[in-house]
Amino acid sequence: MNLDQYFQMYLPEIELELKNAVYGFVPDQFSEFRKMLTYHMGWEGEGAGSKAQGKRLRPILVLLSCEACGGDWRSALPAAAAVELLHNFSLIHDDVEDQSDTRRGRLTVWAKWGEAHAINAGDLLFSVANAEMISLSKLCGSKMAVSAMELFQETCIHLTAGQYLDMSYEKTNSITMADYWPMIEGKTAALISCCAQLGAISAGASESVRQKLGEFAKFLGLAFQVQDDWLGIWGDPTVTGKSAASDLITGKKTIPVLYGLQHSSEFQKRWDEGPITEEEAGSVAQVLKEAGADQFTMFESNRLTDISMQALRQTELNNDAFRAIEELALMLVGRKS
Amino acid sequence: MNLDQYFQMYLPEIELELKNAVYGFVPDQFSEFRKMLTYHMGWEGEGAGSKAQGKRLRPILVLLSCEACGGDWRSALPAAAAVELLHNFSLIHDDVEDQSDTRRGRLTVWAKWGEAHAINAGDLLFSVANAEMISLSKLCGSKMAVSAMELFQETCIHLTAGQYLDMSYEKTNSITMADYWPMIEGKTAALISCCAQLGAISAGASESVRQKLGEFAKFLGLAFQVQDDWLGIWGDPTVTGKSAASDLITGKKTIPVLYGLQHSSEFQKRWDEGPITEEEAGSVAQVLKEAGADQFTMFESNRLTDISMQALRQTELNNDAFRAIEELALMLVGRKS
Repeated sequence: MNLDQYFQMYLPEIELELKNAVYGFVPDQFSEFRKMLTYHMGWEGEGAGSKAQGKRLRPILVLLSCEACGGDWRSALPAAAAVELLHNFSLIHDDVEDQSDTRRGRLTVWAKWGEAHAINAGDLLFSVANAEMISLSKLCGSKMAVSAMELFQETCIHLTAGQYLDMSYEKTNSITMADYWPMIEGKTAALISCCAQLGAISAGASESVRQKLGEFAKFLGLAFQVQDDWLGIWGDPTVTGKSAASDLITGKKTIPVLYGLQHSSEFQKRWDEGPITEEEAGSVAQVLKEAGADQFTMFESNRLTDISMQALRQTELNNDAFRAIEELALMLVGRKS
Repeated sequence: MNLDQYFQMYLPEIELELKNAVYGFVPDQFSEFRKMLTYHMGWEGEGAGSKAQGKRLRPILVLLSCEACGGDWRSALPAAAAVELLHNFSLIHDDVEDQSDTRRGRLTVWAKWGEAHAINAGDLLFSVANAEMISLSKLCGSKMAVSAMELFQETCIHLTAGQYLDMSYEKTNSITMADYWPMIEGKTAALISCCAQLGAISAGASESVRQKLGEFAKFLGLAFQVQDDWLGIWGDPTVTGKSAASDLITGKKTIPVLYGLQHSSEFQKRWDEGPITEEEAGSVAQVLKEAGADQFTMFESNRLTDISMQALRQTELNNDAFRAIEELALMLVGRKS
């Protein structure tokens, strides 16, 4: 089987498990409240459908990781659903915190129901994620479920810490590269690492395989974020779906920007003068490129991908699911093979 | 031992367990972020101290319930700390949702750090509560911890549903008594019931004792809330610390108000005309009293207390901790014995 075939096999089962969790844990008497979740998950309301649901990449990684470790992927379904629910809970709250009113082409929960309801709906979805995680005990036993839950909560703490750093960095100009890594580790890499490890735990894999898979996915998450930072400045607008150099316009402190602030007095001067307009964005991106930010960012993404793939190979796993993980990883960081 | 002595024995241990959870699960590298929690918990910052910490009644009930069931109260400490952390997480978010800028005489988290940080800090505290709950497995074993966590998450779902109803009711005028009960069951009674049941689970009590203790605490929570509704209108301002008939001024749809809307056309007319001022509050409270809302509310509180105490007696427990629970319950609903 290849990655495509795994997607086709897993996706309907993931969606079913997600629906069973939301409809099962939130009783019908609260159906009006539950609508905020079924809307956000892309199942109901205006614009519902597969486009509104996201790619479900995180649960796919959980299931592949379980199968790569020789486990039955069905036993990892509660963990797979739980990470997707957790991810979506954090999106609902992030959207309030960042005041973003659209996501995947639709109004965000707070834009539709107000901030107070969105905060509370996020809390509900977090609770559903936890309840779903606990249900892992029915398939894998209590002991395994407890160790999966320990990892899950640790990940939640890292997610909030990453968001804390991200919000704090907006307010200060003295951020350096050293500050950048713990932020994206919390915001992006921790949950991806959690996915790979949950698959391993559900399969009853050894501690060393779990560690290596976790390391692989952590560095994959970092590489993916760095690559995303590159795309946010030099990506093709027809591919990214955003305006050219959009991250420069929004003023995000991404890795090329931090590099530019450290290595280009021309860029630093322009950055300190305030918001960059859409008209200027192209020329500022060019300044950054000439300072080496473009090359440095690609270099970092490649370096992190190499570390990631090395950890993956060290698991010494070898089956179709393992090769599908490799394929998924390289796809995520934009490498062909 | 009596209730006072239990308080003296338990309180320092609860505080220690709470601190170990917050400082233990949130690493030092995030100490700036952690400050939002240690401030909210009343340990740090302006106005820190026992007054800012609240009464810790919920964890006390967990420990008493464990001991009443013949368990070692120390084994229930993680569950006791978890419910208090959960309660405090919900307060941080409620304060944002209700836009309340003071709590226990201090600025709320959002008033101090802004809404975005407060939402995120609440999420962190929820994660810490969950992590603390999982640590119950070290003292009580994985199986018991899983069943405690199932109850805990179900309670979280009820808490958010209660808050959903409360916020929804603010926007509509067609609320009746039938709508009132599920709201306070979620907002107040579910967590108190969870406390008593967690004590029973930690002690390894039988299912029937757990159920009875849960029923006792659920009805105690309802009785307490109804009594609180009474105090919000007819309570002595020198005792409640609020202005006279404060709930009438804020326009809360409490049980005396819902009774008045159903039974007094005079009250209904006044209510429909818009906000009640501080000057009018006394006379409107008198209108409600004459309509029988005062007597009805007291009657309901007493009725619920009786159901609660009957369930407690049906546990057929009989030791010092059991009698302390009785004492605590009657104290909460303002009865001497």
